[in-house]
Amino acid sequence: MSTDINHQVQIAARPQGFPKTSDFRVVETAVPRPSDGQMLCRTIYLSLDPYMRGRMNAGPSYAAGLELGDVMTGGTVSEVVESNLDEFGVGDFVLGGNGWQEYALSDGRGIRKLNPADAPISTAVGVLGMPGHTAYVGLLDIGKVKTGETVVVSAASGAVGAVVGQIAKINGCRVVGIAGTAEKCKYVVDSLGFDACLSHRNERLSEELKAACPRGVDVYFENVGGKVFDAVLPLLNNFARVPICGRIATYNLTEMPPGPDQVSKVMGLALIRRLTLRGFIVTDHADRETDFLRDVGEWVRDGAVKYREDIVEGLEHAVEAFHGLLTGRNFGKLLVRVAADPTR
Amino acid sequence: MSTDINHQVQIAARPQGFPKTSDFRVVETAVPRPSDGQMLCRTIYLSLDPYMRGRMNAGPSYAAGLELGDVMTGGTVSEVVESNLDEFGVGDFVLGGNGWQEYALSDGRGIRKLNPADAPISTAVGVLGMPGHTAYVGLLDIGKVKTGETVVVSAASGAVGAVVGQIAKINGCRVVGIAGTAEKCKYVVDSLGFDACLSHRNERLSEELKAACPRGVDVYFENVGGKVFDAVLPLLNNFARVPICGRIATYNLTEMPPGPDQVSKVMGLALIRRLTLRGFIVTDHADRETDFLRDVGEWVRDGAVKYREDIVEGLEHAVEAFHGLLTGRNFGKLLVRVAADPTR
Repeated sequence: MSTDINHQVQIAARPQGFPKTSDFRVVETAVPRPSDGQMLCRTIYLSLDPYMRGRMNAGPSYAAGLELGDVMTGGTVSEVVESNLDEFGVGDFVLGGNGWQEYALSDGRGIRKLNPADAPISTAVGVLGMPGHTAYVGLLDIGKVKTGETVVVSAASGAVGAVVGQIAKINGCRVVGIAGTAEKCKYVVDSLGFDACLSHRNERLSEELKAACPRGVDVYFENVGGKVFDAVLPLLNNFARVPICGRIATYNLTEMPPGPDQVSKVMGLALIRRLTLRGFIVTDHADRETDFLRDVGEWVRDGAVKYREDIVEGLEHAVEAFHGLLTGRNFGKLLVRVAADPTR
Repeated sequence: MSTDINHQVQIAARPQGFPKTSDFRVVETAVPRPSDGQMLCRTIYLSLDPYMRGRMNAGPSYAAGLELGDVMTGGTVSEVVESNLDEFGVGDFVLGGNGWQEYALSDGRGIRKLNPADAPISTAVGVLGMPGHTAYVGLLDIGKVKTGETVVVSAASGAVGAVVGQIAKINGCRVVGIAGTAEKCKYVVDSLGFDACLSHRNERLSEELKAACPRGVDVYFENVGGKVFDAVLPLLNNFARVPICGRIATYNLTEMPPGPDQVSKVMGLALIRRLTLRGFIVTDHADRETDFLRDVGEWVRDGAVKYREDIVEGLEHAVEAFHGLLTGRNFGKLLVRVAADPTR
């Protein structure tokens, strides 16, 4: 793509159920010029994350929804290509939220400078970014995990789940993952060190999960919803915690699933077993970012936390990659490389 | 009933749905004689509470279920009529859990002596007993209520709900009750000082509840479940807490309600609004009993917390009264006066 043109991916229509390619629109606009107090950033990596599906709906999710014609939301790692700011110079790498586009202006607020010597810059939207921070807060602060407990993590090979399970292992837990494919399950056990990992496509998921959790489940880290939630529910121990991080299996539902209505069953079990079901969103936990970066940064450096990236080349493939994210086709943290990464 | 005979109400059959009279059996047994280290207690008040329905089912609820032929569980206020214990003398009033019967032996463990000069002895199973303790812990520790918040309480004229709402008022909250009848709603507002109270039989409950909670709902104290839960759910604010204390509307369900399955809706809202849904049981919070008795005791003495008792005369009416409890026919804390109360 030319440097005179800023390609953007905008939301063109509200998806009805699973997003169609026509719900997005690729637009060519002029690269903007920075005024005083601004800098121009060129996107190197765009993060693709499940929450983006919610932003495409009308009405607020936990953040304001996008308006039709808005550039799609997204975390980005960029390089500063022009700067009228003292704090940022040309060639700096920065973490921001510039969305699905090649260029964006910034006044520097909310932007964090990245040091490529500390960690690969792509990790700033992955294991050392929002997904990692989500895992850290969700497991430790919401899930209040304790040594020796059993933790079940859905979407276990994903950007959040992989970190959840590894932090749980560092905390001395038994950790059981749930993922889509046999290949992912093998990776979760062999490379990430989970004690077991089951496929949610397995028709005997409930029985196998029960066998994999002989002492029941103390923390279920919920990324998925749907039948995975149904399988975990009866295994939850007294005083179990369910941090609700995502419900990707339900994001494209156009109507509620057929009956019976299981709300009474869920709430009744919550009462009898004194469960805590708690939704959380990482942006409410900015006060833990320093702790997260210190701890997970150290664990990544010493190899206790591993990560895997699934990098798609070119903004023109972002929509297709996002489709894959919603169906579990990605394997590891999904990124779009919008421009070459000069650090590797 | 004669003093030679100990009338007991036993569970005769597992209820299928709403308990039938034939699920209970009234039995005449001999009054037991206390051995060394025992005392004999005569029941004055038997507390009837919704949790008893759960104990009639096979399999564990949060406590072990009753076996067929067991005396029905229940909190009791008794008078000591014979004692071989140093700590308890004839004529002492004691709080225990002797169940649905006229007499029981005790070795004194788990028994608390009551001073009729402090408060009417019946309150030891009501506002100053398990229901009051439940309200205190549920609102303050589980609900983490803060000044100025809006609190909705279902079963608002009941033994727990009435205390929840009054403690919330003491904490400077806007308090909206939900009760069954117009008479109960009037009592909740006029006598207990709630800001509003709506009937769950009102077909416009959702709209009227919304109007009564102009700043949304921060704490929903769940005693009921079913359509009351459905009406409150959309009004919950970000970071709202739902202490799950009871689900009386669902206790007699023989099958799950018809669809659609609303679990995804509930969990999705829990995520977006960062809700905490948390079941709790008062027996896990014995460490707060001293605080509860000090605070609520003071509030009862100075009139900040009022209470109402619905007293049924005679153990032979306990089953019928329990039926009434499950359908909301009682008005205030439901007690059976098994023997005359010599203190009033």
